[in-house]
Amino acid sequence: MTAAAATEVLPYKVANVSEEQFEHLAALGRREIELAEVEMPGLMSLREKYAGQKPLAGARIAGCLHMTIQTAVLIETLIELGAEIRWSSCNIFSTQNHAAIALAKIGIPIFAWKGETEEEFNWCIEQTIFFPSKDGGEPKPLNMILDDGGDLTKLVHDAYPELLEDIRGLTEETTTGVHRLHQMHRAGKLGCPAINVNDSVTKSKFDNLYGCRESLADGIKRATDVMVAGKVCVVCGFGDVGKGSADALKGLGARVIVTEIDPICALQAAMEGYEVTTLEDCCEEADIFVTATGCDDVIRGEHIDRMKHNAIICNIGHFDSEIQVAYLNKHKEVTRERLKKDSDEGGPVDRYTYPDGTSRIVLAEGRLVNLGCATGHPSFVMSNSFTNQVVAQLALWQNPDEWGVDVHVLPKELDEEVARLHLDKIGVKLTKLTPEQAENLGIPQNGPFKPDYYRY
Amino acid sequence: MTAAAATEVLPYKVANVSEEQFEHLAALGRREIELAEVEMPGLMSLREKYAGQKPLAGARIAGCLHMTIQTAVLIETLIELGAEIRWSSCNIFSTQNHAAIALAKIGIPIFAWKGETEEEFNWCIEQTIFFPSKDGGEPKPLNMILDDGGDLTKLVHDAYPELLEDIRGLTEETTTGVHRLHQMHRAGKLGCPAINVNDSVTKSKFDNLYGCRESLADGIKRATDVMVAGKVCVVCGFGDVGKGSADALKGLGARVIVTEIDPICALQAAMEGYEVTTLEDCCEEADIFVTATGCDDVIRGEHIDRMKHNAIICNIGHFDSEIQVAYLNKHKEVTRERLKKDSDEGGPVDRYTYPDGTSRIVLAEGRLVNLGCATGHPSFVMSNSFTNQVVAQLALWQNPDEWGVDVHVLPKELDEEVARLHLDKIGVKLTKLTPEQAENLGIPQNGPFKPDYYRY
Amino acid sequence: MTAAAATEVLPYKVANVSEEQFEHLAALGRREIELAEVEMPGLMSLREKYAGQKPLAGARIAGCLHMTIQTAVLIETLIELGAEIRWSSCNIFSTQNHAAIALAKIGIPIFAWKGETEEEFNWCIEQTIFFPSKDGGEPKPLNMILDDGGDLTKLVHDAYPELLEDIRGLTEETTTGVHRLHQMHRAGKLGCPAINVNDSVTKSKFDNLYGCRESLADGIKRATDVMVAGKVCVVCGFGDVGKGSADALKGLGARVIVTEIDPICALQAAMEGYEVTTLEDCCEEADIFVTATGCDDVIRGEHIDRMKHNAIICNIGHFDSEIQVAYLNKHKEVTRERLKKDSDEGGPVDRYTYPDGTSRIVLAEGRLVNLGCATGHPSFVMSNSFTNQVVAQLALWQNPDEWGVDVHVLPKELDEEVARLHLDKIGVKLTKLTPEQAENLGIPQNGPFKPDYYRY
Amino acid sequence: MTAAAATEVLPYKVANVSEEQFEHLAALGRREIELAEVEMPGLMSLREKYAGQKPLAGARIAGCLHMTIQTAVLIETLIELGAEIRWSSCNIFSTQNHAAIALAKIGIPIFAWKGETEEEFNWCIEQTIFFPSKDGGEPKPLNMILDDGGDLTKLVHDAYPELLEDIRGLTEETTTGVHRLHQMHRAGKLGCPAINVNDSVTKSKFDNLYGCRESLADGIKRATDVMVAGKVCVVCGFGDVGKGSADALKGLGARVIVTEIDPICALQAAMEGYEVTTLEDCCEEADIFVTATGCDDVIRGEHIDRMKHNAIICNIGHFDSEIQVAYLNKHKEVTRERLKKDSDEGGPVDRYTYPDGTSRIVLAEGRLVNLGCATGHPSFVMSNSFTNQVVAQLALWQNPDEWGVDVHVLPKELDEEVARLHLDKIGVKLTKLTPEQAENLGIPQNGPFKPDYYRY
Repeated sequence: MTAAAATEVLPYKVANVSEEQFEHLAALGRREIELAEVEMPGLMSLREKYAGQKPLAGARIAGCLHMTIQTAVLIETLIELGAEIRWSSCNIFSTQNHAAIALAKIGIPIFAWKGETEEEFNWCIEQTIFFPSKDGGEPKPLNMILDDGGDLTKLVHDAYPELLEDIRGLTEETTTGVHRLHQMHRAGKLGCPAINVNDSVTKSKFDNLYGCRESLADGIKRATDVMVAGKVCVVCGFGDVGKGSADALKGLGARVIVTEIDPICALQAAMEGYEVTTLEDCCEEADIFVTATGCDDVIRGEHIDRMKHNAIICNIGHFDSEIQVAYLNKHKEVTRERLKKDSDEGGPVDRYTYPDGTSRIVLAEGRLVNLGCATGHPSFVMSNSFTNQVVAQLALWQNPDEWGVDVHVLPKELDEEVARLHLDKIGVKLTKLTPEQAENLGIPQNGPFKPDYYRY
Repeated sequence: MTAAAATEVLPYKVANVSEEQFEHLAALGRREIELAEVEMPGLMSLREKYAGQKPLAGARIAGCLHMTIQTAVLIETLIELGAEIRWSSCNIFSTQNHAAIALAKIGIPIFAWKGETEEEFNWCIEQTIFFPSKDGGEPKPLNMILDDGGDLTKLVHDAYPELLEDIRGLTEETTTGVHRLHQMHRAGKLGCPAINVNDSVTKSKFDNLYGCRESLADGIKRATDVMVAGKVCVVCGFGDVGKGSADALKGLGARVIVTEIDPICALQAAMEGYEVTTLEDCCEEADIFVTATGCDDVIRGEHIDRMKHNAIICNIGHFDSEIQVAYLNKHKEVTRERLKKDSDEGGPVDRYTYPDGTSRIVLAEGRLVNLGCATGHPSFVMSNSFTNQVVAQLALWQNPDEWGVDVHVLPKELDEEVARLHLDKIGVKLTKLTPEQAENLGIPQNGPFKPDYYRY
Repeated sequence: MTAAAATEVLPYKVANVSEEQFEHLAALGRREIELAEVEMPGLMSLREKYAGQKPLAGARIAGCLHMTIQTAVLIETLIELGAEIRWSSCNIFSTQNHAAIALAKIGIPIFAWKGETEEEFNWCIEQTIFFPSKDGGEPKPLNMILDDGGDLTKLVHDAYPELLEDIRGLTEETTTGVHRLHQMHRAGKLGCPAINVNDSVTKSKFDNLYGCRESLADGIKRATDVMVAGKVCVVCGFGDVGKGSADALKGLGARVIVTEIDPICALQAAMEGYEVTTLEDCCEEADIFVTATGCDDVIRGEHIDRMKHNAIICNIGHFDSEIQVAYLNKHKEVTRERLKKDSDEGGPVDRYTYPDGTSRIVLAEGRLVNLGCATGHPSFVMSNSFTNQVVAQLALWQNPDEWGVDVHVLPKELDEEVARLHLDKIGVKLTKLTPEQAENLGIPQNGPFKPDYYRY
Repeated sequence: MTAAAATEVLPYKVANVSEEQFEHLAALGRREIELAEVEMPGLMSLREKYAGQKPLAGARIAGCLHMTIQTAVLIETLIELGAEIRWSSCNIFSTQNHAAIALAKIGIPIFAWKGETEEEFNWCIEQTIFFPSKDGGEPKPLNMILDDGGDLTKLVHDAYPELLEDIRGLTEETTTGVHRLHQMHRAGKLGCPAINVNDSVTKSKFDNLYGCRESLADGIKRATDVMVAGKVCVVCGFGDVGKGSADALKGLGARVIVTEIDPICALQAAMEGYEVTTLEDCCEEADIFVTATGCDDVIRGEHIDRMKHNAIICNIGHFDSEIQVAYLNKHKEVTRERLKKDSDEGGPVDRYTYPDGTSRIVLAEGRLVNLGCATGHPSFVMSNSFTNQVVAQLALWQNPDEWGVDVHVLPKELDEEVARLHLDKIGVKLTKLTPEQAENLGIPQNGPFKPDYYRY
């Protein structure tokens, strides 16, 4: 896209619905945004703290992150802090149309709808690179990136490398995206400072763990209404996402089997009472399969072939490459039937039937099941993640000289501050160190309380 | 309604949707019924056992039970066993339109849709009393009752007492209905044999307990997407439903407070680590309130007034009288806003706003939240309950002389048999007593294994 | 024993220790009794209620029940209520010597020590049949029985049937003993009224379930110090005792497998997430085996032979017949080594070594591991059980004409009252029904709240 | 101590018991060591790996670490690898006499017994500084330190600074000791390379967390036999030790309240369903108090005064300074009574009685309750910790030039290797990355799998 083309910046593009439906969804979305605000004390307190100050004035933030109700609260917080934003979703199924439309309704440039094609997905990201000039001049490019998974980051580096110079920094939301950033940086290809938001404690140990604990079963149930109790469930991967997923299923009375490549995580799984074995050994026995690895081709055709009738297969990792759905789609003798469309409640859901009459149920086409078939993580935990995002955007924007081209994490003080902003809402009372205790411990009375390497 | 009027028996009445929508929902419903069949091994094995035998031939069963996908499998099982049926739902919000329409589509007389008025609700039940004559003659009245909560039973006893003589019996699904039956019987007003299906172990200790454990959080999340972890939740009542509800919320990381009137149940709650106190003491502190008592006016205006902003209030007991929703509706200074309609995903949800600007969120208008805002209990656990229903209908129909006018429970053998039918599906292998062990224990080698008073 | 012989009634017989040790243990036991009193509010409130009234005056209660600290509080309660008592233990390993000695020290006739032979065990029970005359006359026989497991009951019926006529009744503590009573009664051999204390809800659903949850791991750990997390544990039997046992092991991070003969209990186990299979299928894989069935020969030689090196085998059911320890003892090629004597902390523990060099560890010689290797159930839960015992003894003694020769359970009111007596101690606040609510429910405002068949 | 004095190196000093008792305890200890070896696969595989190689030849390791059965397996592993050792315990109550005596019996120089005075404690550590010359020459000083808590490290730095030059390094076991090392290093006072073993993932996330989950309740129960279910328990501190402690108590049915100073840990506690408040707010309500903070004066006189009758107070942190036991001891109106001596099972336990007749129960005089009143962490989890210790000792001894004077942690490869050594024992099967997967992830096929900052 040339700058010339970019003059044609669109105001927004959301789900193609009737005007009546647009108004209905806008109103529904707005009511849910209002509810979410009460559950997102971290973001709301930032609005309060910076009321009237516009610390992000001048920032043109392109965002690429699941366009949900919670993200709407994030976006409106960034705007209240003075930023301009343009937004796409980082997954073709994760947009909540009522969230997107509620923002579009008041003129916020959102480019996202549930059930994009891959081509539309890329097109949407493209729409967020150039911002309309307020004074009628030429469009101006983004100068900040807020990313989830790295697709926007990749696009900018690959297609718009000339813009990197003026980008003050990028903030990245998720394990997979951070992994990519480290790869880029090791290869000398990272073009601006990056803050790894994922590895703030208040993000990875909350969103990944507790968020998935809340939303995995929700996604599976909206998709299939299956009873989890008594079922044999396999969780592939026992990182934070896998830990939350396994705990959710166990909490509902499933018998959970874990697969792992890392002996430490495998030992943790065993200490929690899970059977740990290989997929080869358990694929015939299990009823529900969940991938949470960040790795490609974890559930392969060879496993799917051997599964039980109506085995349910889904993914809660960032990318859709963990399950070989393509194997099923290409298999000539396997017929595919769409049980629920992506516009149905709990959809998309597909049933693949083998010649022997047995079927496999695939949720969200192998994409994030909690966002594809349900509404993703709940507001409160996302408030933690997104408060880190805003804090990181502020840090990069306000102090551009402090951050070299590297992959940084937020300092412990800010991480603790994010947690602190969430305590009141749930009635937590902190104990305060006495001056003597603090001195004996050799730490400040108000923190930070832990060394950087502390694992929580 | 007179017999004359009853000649006008309608074929069915379901949600008033476009023809296209009817076809879409019928197809969607049928696909979900197919999925449910795999999860309902008890019902399917009865179909197999009686294939070609029609043991219920001649039975005209009027059913009044939540018209869901699972109920559709029950209905089609009764029909396969030879019965004629007519069906209404026992709750104005509990019908799943795609389930009702899938049956209507193939001519099964269903009278149910989501969001009936009270008047429509009663009208629907009325439609199930008289069955069209197959030979063009006069409609014939029901001769069997399958009830949930007792509304159909009450209607027949109050308005059609003359029909009781030819009714071979009734089967009742739920705690509340059984309570009513005992009251009627003590008052000498019960007019036919009744089987208390609720108190089959394979019903009350599974459906009430494990069903609610699966479906309560599901209902709350579809309605509000709230994060349960970290919240203070109050569960009123610690019977089987309350036990399952409390376990579900605790499993997601809530801090659960229980209220109880019964010292034994209160002590159980304490042994499970729950705080047990009165609603008066905790209503200002909690975020989510769930009633599961079977008792009227448990959460009253005086409690609701004192709750936190955006406190969520819902009920999982049979009737809608546990929460004083009417108090809010009548309160002149409280404004009501419908956040989600009953046709929206997760609806109906209402927000009541007080003059001080704080709100309370009421789910499903105080009716069963798991059925009102979600899809009710999952298929597998309902298969246990409904297999008991079919077994009880068979018992009454096939051996009418064995059952006096009383409230019976199924014999232990049948209860154990229902359980046995559900083991294979989830891979359970039973141990078998040796003849010597059975003799030493003084019980038959294949059961029944426990005395009637055994509590499980 | 003839009445003549019985004139030689001994004052007590406890562990044969030095005088110094006797004093030490008596003092230690007394201090622990004092601690236990605070944890046994049910018993203490009975003492308070009947202060000065001696409602059991005239009762000569022979007791046969694990002679622990908690039992000491029971005994002293019975005495405070006016009874005379004589006591033996119902298991050769379950006596806590400091408890027995603390009572002997103040002249209470206890016949029990840890590590009795079978012969001594029977001798001890014999000592409790005749009571010394207070006025120097002939010894008088017992007129009440308080039993656990039925050995005393059996002795009286078999060897002293002439005494039955003057026995006002017996109360039985445990599942196994009740089972025996029903067998006797069906065979027409029961000789006096019996109250089944086990099946008071406040006994079986508390002592059996929560008592075992607390004491099973305690017994295993004192015996072996083994890490439970990560281990594969097999619990044979999923009644109340098995449920508590499985929960305890799961709570510590074990992977628990359940074996069951009853399809209902098997289905419950599956709903709680346990694998349910046969011992044949899992005996090679597991690390720890626990029997809780009430059935003979559950873990047999054929299973033990196939177990892993250092597999731990123990029993928490009443009798020592669940594990074929005799098989090991008789096996010529298996050598037995006593790792811990019964006088060592956590003993007795035996290691059986096979010719291939692998061993099996057997705890408490297959007797109750929680009492054999540790201190049994904690005081608070035993207070529930023992309050039922006292209430039952009172009921039989005070109203001898009300009870026919049959196996009775206590009425619901008394069961609820037992629970009520335990609420204050743990800070439970009960909700009280309004008169209107009670009327709508058709139950008394202060209970009983549930029908007799209610399962809790 | 001068070198002259040090010529009088003692062979060992253990509990002062009769010869018969010595033999009994030595045999008992040896049997338990044999059992522990089967549970400590990490240590045993190091013995196997280095069989015949003596990689620690020349190392004179002074160890100061709880002298338990598990430590005996560690010590014998170090000896098998060629080291000379001298050993003291790091806590006056934590020695298991049978473990110490079993080693002394075969001539290993152990200086430790249960119930040392503070003076004896220091004397014992002193005995480990100088090693007897094998050839009859002058004693030689230690050249390696293996420490737990830093007392030995402190002694060497303060009293024997001249020895530091020849010390190749020290390894430190616990959070508190590491905290001290960092303080020393920041102050420029650290005199040799140090490896922080505590922060190996396979130590802190296993021993601290799962070890305490297994051993806290064990300690409380052996000390008091109290029922945990239904009790209100306060856990002060929600680090790894606090997390394990809270989980243990919750698993037994307690209601757990957490106190925290760190907002992140406080938020974690809330997400797990714990109430988080201050000690001031909950000290009157709770039954059991556990400190796990590493901080002084956490439970103070002002709290203890307000507690309930028979409230139980204990500590599971390293030092005995968390509870102000001295306050009680000095209080003129509070009487102290020793319920159990340190030589009784489950002792030491003290009861402090106030003038109003209410008491408080203090376990292990405020020292580590799991080691003071029970047997500490189980073998399997200690095998993880101690395998790290041996690996760290090897690393320092074999490659002295690689480690500067600093506080190091072991590299990820070794951490993962420690985990790997423990998988077989508990039947864990690892999944192996394909070469393609490894390449896509950009990590070696056999690990290390995670970045250093990963939190597990």
